[in-house]
Amino acid sequence: MPMTYETFTREIARLNDVLCSINLLTWDSRTMMPAGGVESRGKQIATLTGIARDLATGDALQKAIEGARSELTGVPADDLRLRAIETAATQTATLARIPASLVSEAAELKTLAQSAWARARAADDFAGFAPMLERTMEMQRQIAGAIGYDEHPYDALVSTYEPGMRWKRLRGLYGELQTALLPLLDRAREVRIRSDILERSYPVESQRAFSVRMAQRMGYDFDRGRLDNTVHPFEISFTREDVRITGRFRDTWLPGGLFAVWHEAGHGLYEQGVSPDLTRSAFTADFVNLYAVGGASFGTHESQSRLLENRVGRSRRFWELHFEELRQAFPDQLSDVSADEFWRAVNAPRPGHIRVEADELTYDFHIMLRSEIEAGLMAGEVSVGELPEIWAAKMRSYLGLTVPSDTLGVLQDVHWSSGMIGSFPTYTIGNIMSSQFFAAARKDQAVETGLEIGDYQPLKTWLNDQVHRHGRSRSPSELLLAATGSELSTEAYIADLTHKVDELTL
Amino acid sequence: MPMTYETFTREIARLNDVLCSINLLTWDSRTMMPAGGVESRGKQIATLTGIARDLATGDALQKAIEGARSELTGVPADDLRLRAIETAATQTATLARIPASLVSEAAELKTLAQSAWARARAADDFAGFAPMLERTMEMQRQIAGAIGYDEHPYDALVSTYEPGMRWKRLRGLYGELQTALLPLLDRAREVRIRSDILERSYPVESQRAFSVRMAQRMGYDFDRGRLDNTVHPFEISFTREDVRITGRFRDTWLPGGLFAVWHEAGHGLYEQGVSPDLTRSAFTADFVNLYAVGGASFGTHESQSRLLENRVGRSRRFWELHFEELRQAFPDQLSDVSADEFWRAVNAPRPGHIRVEADELTYDFHIMLRSEIEAGLMAGEVSVGELPEIWAAKMRSYLGLTVPSDTLGVLQDVHWSSGMIGSFPTYTIGNIMSSQFFAAARKDQAVETGLEIGDYQPLKTWLNDQVHRHGRSRSPSELLLAATGSELSTEAYIADLTHKVDELTL
Repeated sequence: MPMTYETFTREIARLNDVLCSINLLTWDSRTMMPAGGVESRGKQIATLTGIARDLATGDALQKAIEGARSELTGVPADDLRLRAIETAATQTATLARIPASLVSEAAELKTLAQSAWARARAADDFAGFAPMLERTMEMQRQIAGAIGYDEHPYDALVSTYEPGMRWKRLRGLYGELQTALLPLLDRAREVRIRSDILERSYPVESQRAFSVRMAQRMGYDFDRGRLDNTVHPFEISFTREDVRITGRFRDTWLPGGLFAVWHEAGHGLYEQGVSPDLTRSAFTADFVNLYAVGGASFGTHESQSRLLENRVGRSRRFWELHFEELRQAFPDQLSDVSADEFWRAVNAPRPGHIRVEADELTYDFHIMLRSEIEAGLMAGEVSVGELPEIWAAKMRSYLGLTVPSDTLGVLQDVHWSSGMIGSFPTYTIGNIMSSQFFAAARKDQAVETGLEIGDYQPLKTWLNDQVHRHGRSRSPSELLLAATGSELSTEAYIADLTHKVDELTL
Repeated sequence: MPMTYETFTREIARLNDVLCSINLLTWDSRTMMPAGGVESRGKQIATLTGIARDLATGDALQKAIEGARSELTGVPADDLRLRAIETAATQTATLARIPASLVSEAAELKTLAQSAWARARAADDFAGFAPMLERTMEMQRQIAGAIGYDEHPYDALVSTYEPGMRWKRLRGLYGELQTALLPLLDRAREVRIRSDILERSYPVESQRAFSVRMAQRMGYDFDRGRLDNTVHPFEISFTREDVRITGRFRDTWLPGGLFAVWHEAGHGLYEQGVSPDLTRSAFTADFVNLYAVGGASFGTHESQSRLLENRVGRSRRFWELHFEELRQAFPDQLSDVSADEFWRAVNAPRPGHIRVEADELTYDFHIMLRSEIEAGLMAGEVSVGELPEIWAAKMRSYLGLTVPSDTLGVLQDVHWSSGMIGSFPTYTIGNIMSSQFFAAARKDQAVETGLEIGDYQPLKTWLNDQVHRHGRSRSPSELLLAATGSELSTEAYIADLTHKVDELTL
C-alpha cells in the first residue's frame, strides 16, 4: 500500500482518538470516578499514554509522514497540508528525543511525588517533600537536555507549553509588568471596598444557574458540552463536539464559582470554535504533551479564558448590565448592594499568598516568582533546599507579604509534584494576550456595540474567526499578528489594568 | 528479552486497560455525553477497539503466550497460570479467525443499521429496516462461519456469549420451560391483583433514595461504584474497583426504577466481588467480544442480577421486611396498601408484547421466540421478510397475544440492529442459574437466617465465595457444579416459579 497524505491523516486521526480517550479518562477521574478507582485509572491512563507515544513515534506514522511529504512535493509552501505534516513531524521528533524510560520513570515518580506533596502540604512539612522534589527536578533537567535548547534549559520545557517562548523573552515581559504594576498596586491598595458582601450565604444551586445562563449568553454551547463539579476547575475536550467545563461553588464566596465557570467557558469557546474541518487532525492535538487540544498553545488558551473572565466578566459594563439579574437570583443577600459596589468588590485588590485566589493586579507576581524559581532550578543555580527561603524573599519583595507557612507558600501548587515545569509562565502570557485580543476585537464596531448592550455573540464571532477556528494550524505569534497586528506585547494589558485602577480610585 | 509468564501478564494487563477504557467511553456515551459527541465517540471506540484487537491478536501477545507456555512446562495441570494462558490463547485465536475486514464492516453496518432501526421503529415500518437487517444477518452468518461450529451455525454465536452452550441444549431447556410454565401461567392469570397501586405518582428522588439504600444493604459498594440515570439501564466496570450501575426512574411506574437498580446491583456485586488477585488478568476480560468483564459468561452474569432482582427483591419475605420502609418514603401513595398487596402487585403476571416489561412467568417466552428466530435465520431456514409473520404466530402460540404493530413486535429490541445475535438465550440461562445458585445458597444456614431477618451480608458472602471471586477462571458449568453440585438444570427455577404461583393463588 503506498503511503499517501491520506494514510498520514488516518494515522493522525487514530492518534487523536487515543488522546481524546485519555482526556475522557482524566475528566472522569476528576468529576465522576468513585474513590476506589484511583489506582486502576492511573494504570489505564499510563497504558493509553504509552500506546499514544508508540503511535506518535512509531514506524507507521513516521513512514506516513515520509510518504505524505513525497506525495505533496511541489505544492505551494503555504498549503495547510504541508504544515500539518511538518507540525506532526516536528512534534513527534521532539517526543521521540525524550527516552521512553525517562517518560515512564517520570510518570511513576509523579504518582509518588504527588502523594508526598499532599502529605507534606497537610503537615506543613517542606523537608518531607524535598527529596521527592529534588528527584523530580533532576528528571526535568534530563528531559530538558533530551529535548535540547540554545540558550537556557528552562526554554526546552517552556516551549513545550508555549512554542517559541524563551526565558530571556519572559524576563523582558516580567520586567515591563513589574515596572507598570507595582505602582498600580500601590494606588489600588488605598481603595476601600465592601468585599464582605461576597462572603454572605449564596446557595450554590442559584450560583450555578446564574453562571450557566451567563456562560450560554457568552456563547458556550451546552449541546456540545456540560458543566460538572470538581475540586480544581478545568476545561477538557474530546473533539470540538464534546467540550466539557467544570466548576466549584462555595456557599460563602460568590465570585469563586461564577468567575471560574466563565473562565472555563472561555477555554470551552476556544475548543468548540475550532473549525470542523480540523477535527481529528494534526491541528487538534499536542503531540509533545500527548494531549488532545485545539488551542494553539497554553498561553493562547489562557488568553481566551482570561478574556471572558476578566476583560468581559469583571468589566464595569458587564455588571451595570447584569447585576440586576444576579440580584434577582439572590434578592436577600444583595438587597443592600449596588451594581457599582458589586463591580468594585469583584475587582478588589487583595494581595495574598495563594495564586489561585489572586486578583488581577497581583496574579502575575505569583507567576514571576514561580518562573524565576523554576528557571533557577533548571539552570542549577538554585537548590531545592533553598526554596522556602527564596519564596519568602520574593513574596516580601513583590507583594510585601510575610509567608506564614510552607503550606501557604512553596507547597501550595500541585504543578511541581506533577513535574509540570515551564507551564506557569503561560498564565501570564495568557493575561497579556487576552488584552491584546480584546483590544483588537473592540475595534470591530459590532463587538463594541454588543459589549455595550450585553450581546456577546459578535465578540464570540470575532474570536471564532480570528483565533478559535484555526486550531493549532497557526502559531501563537501568527495568530496574534494576524488578529491584532502586533507581536506579544504588554501594552494593552497594562493599559487595561491602569484603566481599571483609574476607575476603582475615582 | 526472554518471553516469560511475566511478559504474558504484562501484555494482558495492558489489554485490560484498553478494554476498561472502551468501557468508560461506552458508559459515558450512555450517561453523561452531550448530544453533539455521538459521532466522534463512535470513532474513538472504533479506534480503541481496533487497537485492542491488534494487541489481542498481534505478535507480542502471541509470542508471550508461547514463551509463558514454555516457561511453565511441567507445572501441575490445574495451575491457574496454565489456565490463564490457555484461556487467552483460545479466545484470541477465536478472535483472530474473524477477519478484521469483517469486524470493521460489521461495526460500520451497526451504526447504519441502528439508525435505520430507530427510524423504522418510530414509523412502525419493518420493510424500511428489512434490507439493513438482511445485511446484518448475512454478516453474522459469515462471522459464525469464520468462528466455526460442529452442529449449528447459531452455536458459534451463542458460545461467544455463553461458552459451551449449543442450540440443541437450549431447545431442550426451552422445552422443559414451556411444559412447566404454560400451565403456571394459566393458573396465575386467574389471580386478581391491584396493579394500579404501582402507577400512582412516586417522586423519582425518593425512588432513587430507597433503591440505593436497599442496594447498599444487598452489598453494592458505592465507594467502588455509582448510580447514574440512563435510557436502558446497564452495569459496566473498569476493574473491580470501579463498577458502575445505571437506572431509569419513572414517576408513575414504581417497580421499573426499583427493580432495575437491584438488577444492576446484582451485576455490580459480581464485578465488585472478583478477587483482587485477578485484576487486569486473563480472567477479567472477554477477548472475543473485546469487553472488560469479570463474570464467567453473560448467563452467569445475568444469574446474579436476576437473583437479587427476583429471588430476593420479589420475594414475599423481602416485602414483609421492607415494605414499611418503602411506605415511609411514600406515605400518601401507599397509605391504603398492605405489604402483601404490594408483594402481589410486583409479581403480577402481565402477558404483554414488550420483553423488558415482562414478568417472571412470561419473560422466557420472549426469549424463546427470539432464539428460535435467530437460529432459523442463521441456518437459512427463515428469511428476514417473514419475521413479522413468524413473530405474530409465536406470540399467539406462547402468550395468546395478537401483535398490534411491528414497533410492539419485531422492531422492539436494539439487539438485531447491533448485530448481537446469540445473546438473547443468556437471559433465560441467567434465570435458570439464578434459582440454582439461590437454592444452593439457602442451604447455608447463615444465608437462610439472613434472608429471614433482612441481613443480606451472608448471601453476598456466599455468592462472593462461590461465584464472584473466581472471575472468569472457571467456566459457567464448573461454577455451577462446584457451587450447587449440579449442571445447568431447570428444576430449581421451575420450583421457584411454581412456589410463587402457589403463593399468589392462595
